[in-house]
Amino acid sequence: MTTQANTQDRKCTNGVDVTALFETIDAVKNDTGLAEFRFRASNQWIDAGHNRSTIQGFHGCRAEDTTRSEPFVFDADEPPVLLGQDAGANPVEYVLHALAACLTTTMAYHAAARGIEIEAIDSQPEGDLDLRGFLGLSDEVRKGYREIRVNFRVKSTASPSTLSELAKFSPVYDIVSNSLPVEVRVETY
Amino acid sequence: MTTQANTQDRKCTNGVDVTALFETIDAVKNDTGLAEFRFRASNQWIDAGHNRSTIQGFHGCRAEDTTRSEPFVFDADEPPVLLGQDAGANPVEYVLHALAACLTTTMAYHAAARGIEIEAIDSQPEGDLDLRGFLGLSDEVRKGYREIRVNFRVKSTASPSTLSELAKFSPVYDIVSNSLPVEVRVETY
Repeated sequence: MTTQANTQDRKCTNGVDVTALFETIDAVKNDTGLAEFRFRASNQWIDAGHNRSTIQGFHGCRAEDTTRSEPFVFDADEPPVLLGQDAGANPVEYVLHALAACLTTTMAYHAAARGIEIEAIDSQPEGDLDLRGFLGLSDEVRKGYREIRVNFRVKSTASPSTLSELAKFSPVYDIVSNSLPVEVRVETY
Repeated sequence: MTTQANTQDRKCTNGVDVTALFETIDAVKNDTGLAEFRFRASNQWIDAGHNRSTIQGFHGCRAEDTTRSEPFVFDADEPPVLLGQDAGANPVEYVLHALAACLTTTMAYHAAARGIEIEAIDSQPEGDLDLRGFLGLSDEVRKGYREIRVNFRVKSTASPSTLSELAKFSPVYDIVSNSLPVEVRVETY
């Protein structure tokens, strides 16, 4: 969504090309269809708790993205205590990664847009899960996390409350903290 | 949470040690504290949209797990069109992986518990996201996915509706489709 400009004119904050960011915002204001993205993955079961996703293409800015020459490949499994063989992080751990990663990127981008410099960001997400939900042992226990906490340490002169507000523009924060329609369709053969 | 038994007595379906699964269920019924898990990650910002999570230990079954000799490490980044350098899948793509992985594992485990054999599972998750939410251009556009669809092809004699019901015991399906309290704490230095 960026347009080429003289590199001497470009402004960069927190590693983010702020000139390109504002060009993106202007482009979307003029043509909201550019903002429509469709992300996707492909997952294949291997055995028991072990499966593998490949992620490569996506649709955005009215075009199919072709910049990735190779797919990203992620294995999910369960630890032995949950009857797996630890061939990968488990799905609820991937959620913590996705959430911390998204809050971090969002904080860096939105701070850059406001001219707020950040030198370092570290975070520790953790989530509490009662296995009785997954096992179907209690209707009163939810299957997923009961609560997630994400503790950030940020090297910046901005206030903690400002940084927290900026981070909460995060798409994954929205996905996890609010409800979202998920349609599961199964076809057998 | 498994106890050792004569391997000749053990039953395995879909690669899942069903004997161990029922031992786990019995153990949790007798001591609900065994079901309390706390998963965690540690994320470090690198630059712009690039950051990295490490995932290793977790708490479960009243103990800290020590089975993983090395951490799992995942890089997140954004594609060039979103001002990154594609050093990793982006956070909302990781959500699709986590969701498909969890639905798949849950289908395999719960089918095993019911004696339903599955030969193959493939899925394609996809999600629609309007970037105007993240960019703060409209209060009416949510920041995360508007909708996610997961299409499964399963090789099994069980009905699609049964397999779909079993998959929906998935913790990540619960996390994504329902709301969840997420506490973000920021400390600066």
